[in-house]
Amino acid sequence: MNEHVRIFSAGGPIMSPDELEAAIRAVGAERYHDKHPFHKLLHGGKLNKGQVQAWALNRYCYQEAVPRKDAAFMSRIHDRDLRREWIHRINDHDGNSIDEPGGIERWLALTTGLGLDRDYVTSMRGALPATRFAVEAYVHFVREQPLVVAIASSLSELFAPKIHKERIAGMLENYDFIDDDVMAYFKRRLNQAPRDANFALQFVKDYAKSRYIQEACIEAVRFKCNVLWAQLDALNHAYVTPGQIPPGAFKPEA
Amino acid sequence: MNEHVRIFSAGGPIMSPDELEAAIRAVGAERYHDKHPFHKLLHGGKLNKGQVQAWALNRYCYQEAVPRKDAAFMSRIHDRDLRREWIHRINDHDGNSIDEPGGIERWLALTTGLGLDRDYVTSMRGALPATRFAVEAYVHFVREQPLVVAIASSLSELFAPKIHKERIAGMLENYDFIDDDVMAYFKRRLNQAPRDANFALQFVKDYAKSRYIQEACIEAVRFKCNVLWAQLDALNHAYVTPGQIPPGAFKPEA
Repeated sequence: MNEHVRIFSAGGPIMSPDELEAAIRAVGAERYHDKHPFHKLLHGGKLNKGQVQAWALNRYCYQEAVPRKDAAFMSRIHDRDLRREWIHRINDHDGNSIDEPGGIERWLALTTGLGLDRDYVTSMRGALPATRFAVEAYVHFVREQPLVVAIASSLSELFAPKIHKERIAGMLENYDFIDDDVMAYFKRRLNQAPRDANFALQFVKDYAKSRYIQEACIEAVRFKCNVLWAQLDALNHAYVTPGQIPPGAFKPEA
Repeated sequence: MNEHVRIFSAGGPIMSPDELEAAIRAVGAERYHDKHPFHKLLHGGKLNKGQVQAWALNRYCYQEAVPRKDAAFMSRIHDRDLRREWIHRINDHDGNSIDEPGGIERWLALTTGLGLDRDYVTSMRGALPATRFAVEAYVHFVREQPLVVAIASSLSELFAPKIHKERIAGMLENYDFIDDDVMAYFKRRLNQAPRDANFALQFVKDYAKSRYIQEACIEAVRFKCNVLWAQLDALNHAYVTPGQIPPGAFKPEA
């Protein structure tokens, strides 16, 4: 296994598919980023506009990485049927020039709605280095891990609809600079995420056929939760704690 | 260029080797981690033992990555003379079984001296995910960037002797749980780092022969400073701000 997945006990009996699913869901209950203090501030209307801008422009880096992550994954799949299943994830994020702008474009509607310059956001110059390190760790993970483990790392999406619902309601209610249009990204994900997560979960339950790989899959979900949690830690440190913005990172207007 | 190096202005005239060196040194003056608030706390005796333990066990991840970084670099070098020059860096860290324990072993003398269990430290289970992401970003950078840019990323060592001197003096003076033996790592690096940095600096001055590559080399030093800075941000957030230790990370004894 590579540096990010360490198996500490691969000695137990193989789990049933349902036991495996339960163990994966327990990771979400323990450490999905809906538990992070920064999200409580964000959804509860406790952040100022500059802090919400910082969140949105950092989170853009994650959006920007997702289709690269999926392309890295597809580059390793020899099964054409699986590639045909997977490619809609890239389409969902990248869109097309005809009728579907895609998730990244919807994210940019959010950052533009928040008053950020589009070129500044897409350059990622103002993003926190910690954000970039976390996001690229995810791309490398998917490039390097066994296929079923790479797929398992996407299973944080099992836990996403709840946070998206809270976010849509909380942000619309609490911020006068947020309206329906800029929340389009999250509304769309309410439908997309469960479809993707259910496919990935079934795949993991079908193909994780040894205790070792099952534990690696559970650890992959933990890894992915860490990727998300670390992004919020970095935001919290830089933009909630006073005086801690790292050199070169976005500075909100006073 | 990959995701971590973006060149924003490659239109200027080529710099002289001395101008390039000055631009590289300016990065250190601007953002080397001796400027980070956490280092001021560490060297000034303002941390408690649990916080120093957290620093040492997280920084172990960086030590652990350095020889892998150098091996990744060597795997791309076709020039046997350059490999022969570079390999002592791996030896410096890994040591041998005869007369030289190496830098990682000296680091473990520090963590053991601080009362941490060796297996716990080397498992890296208690390290902050943000530490791992930053450190592995460095390994990937060296694996993926043009060779001269990869070498340039090591040039943060130009700025290291000053911080090591401050650290040895400050920690010996301010902490009763720190003695000469556990500071052996830093004393050794006082001699090793300048030799390595001077070789790398000369290499970069000799081979960065276009404005574009020169700017990429300067950006590589900035990237590396970000790798170091982000590690201290993560420590500061988790162990100085109350109540922010992420799930699964080291918890100091009360």
